[in-house]
Amino acid sequence: MSLSQSEIASGLSTILGHDAVITDAQKMDAYLKEPRKRFHAPAAAVVTPPDVPALQALLRWANENRVGIIPQGGNTGLVGAQVPLLGSEVIVSLARFDRIRAIDTAAGVMTAESGVILENAHKAAEAQGAMFPLWLASQGSARIGGVLSSNAGGVNVLAYGNARELTMGVEAVLADGRLYQGLNALKKDNTGYDLKDLLVGAEGTLGIITAATLKIFPLPEDHETALVNVTSPDAALTLFQLMRQRLGGRLNAFELIPQIGLEFQLRHGMLDADPTASPSPWYALIEVTRMAGTEPGALQSALENAFERELITDATLAESLAERTRMWTFREQMSECQSKEGASIKHDVSVPIAAVPALIAEGSAAAARIAPGIRPVPFGHMGDGNIHFNFSQPAGSDPKAFMAQYDEAVHEVIYETVLKLGGSVSAEHGIGQLKVDLLKQVKDPVALDMMRAIKTALDPNGILNPGKMLG
Amino acid sequence: MSLSQSEIASGLSTILGHDAVITDAQKMDAYLKEPRKRFHAPAAAVVTPPDVPALQALLRWANENRVGIIPQGGNTGLVGAQVPLLGSEVIVSLARFDRIRAIDTAAGVMTAESGVILENAHKAAEAQGAMFPLWLASQGSARIGGVLSSNAGGVNVLAYGNARELTMGVEAVLADGRLYQGLNALKKDNTGYDLKDLLVGAEGTLGIITAATLKIFPLPEDHETALVNVTSPDAALTLFQLMRQRLGGRLNAFELIPQIGLEFQLRHGMLDADPTASPSPWYALIEVTRMAGTEPGALQSALENAFERELITDATLAESLAERTRMWTFREQMSECQSKEGASIKHDVSVPIAAVPALIAEGSAAAARIAPGIRPVPFGHMGDGNIHFNFSQPAGSDPKAFMAQYDEAVHEVIYETVLKLGGSVSAEHGIGQLKVDLLKQVKDPVALDMMRAIKTALDPNGILNPGKMLG
Repeated sequence: MSLSQSEIASGLSTILGHDAVITDAQKMDAYLKEPRKRFHAPAAAVVTPPDVPALQALLRWANENRVGIIPQGGNTGLVGAQVPLLGSEVIVSLARFDRIRAIDTAAGVMTAESGVILENAHKAAEAQGAMFPLWLASQGSARIGGVLSSNAGGVNVLAYGNARELTMGVEAVLADGRLYQGLNALKKDNTGYDLKDLLVGAEGTLGIITAATLKIFPLPEDHETALVNVTSPDAALTLFQLMRQRLGGRLNAFELIPQIGLEFQLRHGMLDADPTASPSPWYALIEVTRMAGTEPGALQSALENAFERELITDATLAESLAERTRMWTFREQMSECQSKEGASIKHDVSVPIAAVPALIAEGSAAAARIAPGIRPVPFGHMGDGNIHFNFSQPAGSDPKAFMAQYDEAVHEVIYETVLKLGGSVSAEHGIGQLKVDLLKQVKDPVALDMMRAIKTALDPNGILNPGKMLG
Repeated sequence: MSLSQSEIASGLSTILGHDAVITDAQKMDAYLKEPRKRFHAPAAAVVTPPDVPALQALLRWANENRVGIIPQGGNTGLVGAQVPLLGSEVIVSLARFDRIRAIDTAAGVMTAESGVILENAHKAAEAQGAMFPLWLASQGSARIGGVLSSNAGGVNVLAYGNARELTMGVEAVLADGRLYQGLNALKKDNTGYDLKDLLVGAEGTLGIITAATLKIFPLPEDHETALVNVTSPDAALTLFQLMRQRLGGRLNAFELIPQIGLEFQLRHGMLDADPTASPSPWYALIEVTRMAGTEPGALQSALENAFERELITDATLAESLAERTRMWTFREQMSECQSKEGASIKHDVSVPIAAVPALIAEGSAAAARIAPGIRPVPFGHMGDGNIHFNFSQPAGSDPKAFMAQYDEAVHEVIYETVLKLGGSVSAEHGIGQLKVDLLKQVKDPVALDMMRAIKTALDPNGILNPGKMLG
């Protein structure tokens, strides 16, 4: 028997105090409106527990009363994991868990609570001469708990791994209110199952992360950054392999951008100058880390070699921080610039790296057969096999009509192409509520059964982020 | 009601055929005798299924009949995970799963079956101009399935991670005989819980790994290797931090070795020449990867800087492959050389890197208080905070009496010190049967409960490696 909305509100107030409970529709709005404005279910309440014991008490109560709980960080997720699905859930904002508990550069570890904003984690590390190498477009508002729960990636996965690989341990409140204390700072620990990696990427369905021990690294002396002209994704792939051979672990970014992205950004005045050396069908943004005491020039020398092998046709190396910033701005505006060209159909997908050219070629052709005039805008983390395979509407067509007619059909052929190439239908953004049905269609049924068994074992009453990921 | 031994044998023969079933005690011996000769329970039988469908049929039968199943690779594990505990189990050798299914250097991935010997995986990668960077002393007999199930580490974890981080996906037969098909080759895949990392390191208690997609890397052009004199573990720690700052991801090994290890090896004629520059209380073995097209000298220049800062007192750089090999032989013989000095009490532990000096100092002092004249021989992967904290008996004392009197008491104070410093009582070798009781004492009880819940969810009849890890 489920509680009424007023019973929920009064129960919450009893546990957390009035000040930590929001039921006013207008005040809840900021917690409900997510970036893509696709999900519109209301919440029973929003709560802002002050600390771990309060969160534990909240979950004990929720578990006893079968109240659905949605953990929320910066509300920047793109698949609706952090907002309601049923309309009767309580959103638990972790915003007050905003402390850096410890930072130890000698040990290479920072202990951050899950409400710490990613950018503040960056700053805390930098203040100690270190870096936390996970950069996202949303880092000014994304919080550590959400970053970990969605196993976020970003532009430096190539050298440093995604959120999972950057996390040494987590502390989490389980469905029944008990605290899992897994905050270790160990590079090696073979004492049982890998619970940390189970909680990371679980989208809050197995526990609520309250803090994490994160790997931090010595700050590089400098970066070497270049925007390189390549004639095709195939050439970019061969170039990537050469860069890996010559630069090994120093290669920290290899991003692919199509010419149309430059056109969009110049047309809409989004760049103060053209960052490229000359027009080219494709660009690779390549960055190398230079550590203290190392001679500069590694990237330039590798690119000269690539030029001799005719893998690249032109290149520009950033000569100043301003130039480096412009190159990265060009890359980071790739998503935004599409919104200025009307509607887009988006896919966050990955394939084995060697299959990226086939993905782009086959996917673009398939979409064009369905929607004549559609403009492919595939870009992203080529070095990870992770392409944001987006399509802009034909120039001048009606956005709503375009979406109504083609959204589903284009999704279908792109996912089909991805699966044929052994890829993933969600490389970075996760499942949330957006891709629950898709997951059921494409995932190994044995894997789905294992996931359901684990979910039931750890959250028997199904109160944690109900309906997300597994439906 | 459990089957009799003859019912088990006849059931196995029906499923797998006579040739795949071993019940002769002498023939089973090789599968039962493990490296440390500590575990002596018999097995009901040893079977060598030829392929995945046969293994699936075997597990369906074992699950229905409640027959305990122990997966075994090269039988090189040090904690008894791969040998019987109860005496009624069936050992399933994966030796016939010995195929490299695919290797793709462009994609950076190799698909190896779980019976592939680690050294053969190395050779297969090298034949394609790539490397699989997981090196262990036992690599000539250890098999991929065991390497993954124990989440093995080794000397290159610093740059490339342990087995878990080197694995992209696994295929595994579950307790009920179903096949989990998770062999992807993706660097990013956020479609659900991290089942791969749950199966890796589970010591065969959640499923039997049959194949894995492993990360392979471009072969470096060369290595730069040095044996460096430092006055203390503290100095080694400061040196490690400087090396990380200057060499970043190129630093692929940082091993610590005490002077006593050199004495042992010279005394017993285990080295053809002294690999060190001059006598020193401690040595650091440091290795750097040099990629194609990069100037040599990065390590030398970093060491010159360390010398100027008075962090090191002397150093020798390997000038030839023979010299490099001798340095590594010195390191790799650290365990063996102790056996020539009588009995040893061993601990495979880890602490946050910054706590390594405290671990060595406090642990050595505590052991000396218990056992006067005991000789500390701490060595290992300093860069991972993972020390093989071993103690040799006092010179000339009786080995058996020493072990009887001190083994348990020394374990106790070392584990106490490790836990006080936030460390792990099993950094690399796992739990198996050796550390089941220890795990119960030291692990977060909530974590233990989560592990048990997951075990029950995925193996409700408890047939997979019964009694291991969780007891």
